[in-house]
Amino acid sequence: MSIETEAAKMKLVSPAMAALPISVRNAALSYIAEGLEENKEKVFAANREDLASAEESGLPEPVRRRLHYGEDKMHDSIEGLRELDGLPDPVGRVLLRRELDEGLVLTRVSVPIGVIGVIFEARPDAMVQVASLCIKSGNCAILKGGREAAQTNRVLFGIIRDAADRAGLPDGCLFQAESHSEIDELLKCDRDVDLIIPRGSNRFVRSIMERTKIPVMGHSSGICHIYVDRDADQEMSVGVILDAKTQYPAACNAVETVLIDRGIADSFLPKLAAALTAAGVQMRGTKEVGEKLEETAEKAEKSGKKPAGVPADFEVMGEDEFSTEYGDLILSLKLVDGVQEAVSHINRFGSHHTDCIMTENDEAARYFFSMVDSAGVYRNCSTRFADGYRYGFGAEVGISTGKLHARGPVGLEGLVTYKYELTGNGQTVGDYASGRKEFHHRDLC
Amino acid sequence: MSIETEAAKMKLVSPAMAALPISVRNAALSYIAEGLEENKEKVFAANREDLASAEESGLPEPVRRRLHYGEDKMHDSIEGLRELDGLPDPVGRVLLRRELDEGLVLTRVSVPIGVIGVIFEARPDAMVQVASLCIKSGNCAILKGGREAAQTNRVLFGIIRDAADRAGLPDGCLFQAESHSEIDELLKCDRDVDLIIPRGSNRFVRSIMERTKIPVMGHSSGICHIYVDRDADQEMSVGVILDAKTQYPAACNAVETVLIDRGIADSFLPKLAAALTAAGVQMRGTKEVGEKLEETAEKAEKSGKKPAGVPADFEVMGEDEFSTEYGDLILSLKLVDGVQEAVSHINRFGSHHTDCIMTENDEAARYFFSMVDSAGVYRNCSTRFADGYRYGFGAEVGISTGKLHARGPVGLEGLVTYKYELTGNGQTVGDYASGRKEFHHRDLC
Repeated sequence: MSIETEAAKMKLVSPAMAALPISVRNAALSYIAEGLEENKEKVFAANREDLASAEESGLPEPVRRRLHYGEDKMHDSIEGLRELDGLPDPVGRVLLRRELDEGLVLTRVSVPIGVIGVIFEARPDAMVQVASLCIKSGNCAILKGGREAAQTNRVLFGIIRDAADRAGLPDGCLFQAESHSEIDELLKCDRDVDLIIPRGSNRFVRSIMERTKIPVMGHSSGICHIYVDRDADQEMSVGVILDAKTQYPAACNAVETVLIDRGIADSFLPKLAAALTAAGVQMRGTKEVGEKLEETAEKAEKSGKKPAGVPADFEVMGEDEFSTEYGDLILSLKLVDGVQEAVSHINRFGSHHTDCIMTENDEAARYFFSMVDSAGVYRNCSTRFADGYRYGFGAEVGISTGKLHARGPVGLEGLVTYKYELTGNGQTVGDYASGRKEFHHRDLC
Repeated sequence: MSIETEAAKMKLVSPAMAALPISVRNAALSYIAEGLEENKEKVFAANREDLASAEESGLPEPVRRRLHYGEDKMHDSIEGLRELDGLPDPVGRVLLRRELDEGLVLTRVSVPIGVIGVIFEARPDAMVQVASLCIKSGNCAILKGGREAAQTNRVLFGIIRDAADRAGLPDGCLFQAESHSEIDELLKCDRDVDLIIPRGSNRFVRSIMERTKIPVMGHSSGICHIYVDRDADQEMSVGVILDAKTQYPAACNAVETVLIDRGIADSFLPKLAAALTAAGVQMRGTKEVGEKLEETAEKAEKSGKKPAGVPADFEVMGEDEFSTEYGDLILSLKLVDGVQEAVSHINRFGSHHTDCIMTENDEAARYFFSMVDSAGVYRNCSTRFADGYRYGFGAEVGISTGKLHARGPVGLEGLVTYKYELTGNGQTVGDYASGRKEFHHRDLC
């Protein structure tokens, strides 16, 4: 059957899925956890097949590492399911209750979005995580995993589908797409699929965004900045920059560019360079940064101190390279004239993800917070905090750099929308238009 | 200058627009009202020119009526501006404040979306309304009005721009596009334009939706249903249906299809038919509805009562015609076997706008509310209540049948998004990853 037909069928099933009580949805999560536990060996065997094919076809080591699904990841999947089970129901929350007039009551209540298409690359753990987030939030889902993980995904999806059946989820609420051509089919289903969530590399996400009219929730790049103001605590700034760059360089919330107020370059740049070099971070930057580093090193040498970190591998970079996401131990550096120039640079070269100012000056911080057009604006802490778990959302659906619906780290609330319920006893608009009756709009909660 | 260049410039201006205090934004609204008052005659003269051209080029009467901007509409525009002035600021609302750990505070705060493209057909009052909604919510806007209203729009935009300058809004925060080809240019600006709001006929809105990758907020059709359950109050149902069909038939929230439980067709259909006929509404429906109408009329005649409304102009319609939006005094009718079949019909043929069940049965109402996949689900009241003013939102940006971001009638909150502000004193993620520190996630408000 074509994906178009599947999606159309799923759309008709979605209200029944949305209407399930939370007990049924949570039961499905428990059964998935049980199923994983019971079918461990089957999953590992399928994963060994995928790994063998990956090795045969010469897939690079990082891809094979992501593909691997062993005891550790199985444990994480099961833990994740238990935690999700414990989270409050995102569906059926009353967001507004207002009496428009005597006996005419409006309620705005959260409901599942409907049909979600999820497309992910190699990681088989994504299959379990994403399916369980959709179940918890009462959504139907079409799941398409990477072909490298075909065997593992098939076994995992079987476990998920059995759990769904056992819990009493409606037939056809979950579907696994397996062939690559089905991605294009899925991206065309804008009548029946309400949302696409892509999980994978930046290039992968960007290509999905470019190929569909369905709303996409995700981010195609994370070019995060830290601006060190002239009123910054310099020692603190070095610590935060090191964390933001080195704690997990491949993450989208790792810092890629550090902007430094020209007024403190002489004192700050040598300290930062020394720390970065010691941490194995390669520095790139404008010609001015290079010259400043050299100059301060010479001064240090003359005054008898040992040269404070003139990095041998420093590279001069062009203006247009500042929108590069390294995802690695490489950092771009630039000097600016204060917070205004910093903000202009960030809004121009950034990806509207997460950007930070290091300063003890409240006014500079206020300016930065209001003028930087990003999902996250930070002061005096690492950009790496941009994460649904660290924000206390309990589960993370993804991080969105789009501005509509959900922005920044997205918890379960990103998988719900709302509907308006209006209950009356025969009210007609004619009575209000003619002035026989009047609205009084009294909020009941 | 091309729209692409304008949009790119506007994107850079948008943070300054977003940062304006509400006093400045409200002042701009007052100055627009003053400007309209002072330049009345200039506006009316321009409008007379547009009307003359419209007559010359033979534009149909309804278009010319929408095009007309006289004392009445001027008064409404000014009233609208004063009301908008009085509404609370949608920007800067704290939606969440959470201490992630000692001294590390997360705040989620509402901010303007950024750059909005508004494309509207003939009505010049839309120019004033839409520009003022964007100003109130701190958004930049590219405005493209219908070419029929070119003279009027030019004068109105001049008044708006002067008011913006006088209030101190940033240069380039508003732009008027005047040539038709600029619509296509605007729809391509998905890097710099965050949202498109189309205002006009269904066909117009649909064509905009099909031509852009930018999120569109609006509805391309309003096929609303009323289902009369076997447990309905029949008299109440007739009243509600009459209101929903006749009070303003051209509105998107007018009813287009009435579904009737087969079990009450004998008693209800004749009453409804009589009332509809008396109100000048043409009935269309399935063959079964036609036969039932004839049958009940014959019975009535035999029993000596006068035939209860067999409409002479009743038309049998095919199944696929049930997704027709008449926008006129025409109504589709169908008999169904209870609430389940009603819901299936609505989810299949409806436009997910607003649908109503007439019933005294709580269980049927509950089923209907949870299973109908529409922005509005109503019980025992007219679908015509689906409107931002009637919901008490103070201003209406539009009605959305999309599920993401804003759904149903949308007030000013549809023009804002949010950002996360995180303030610390040097916190690094490494400390939390290593277990040296722990999050405590304490909500502060």
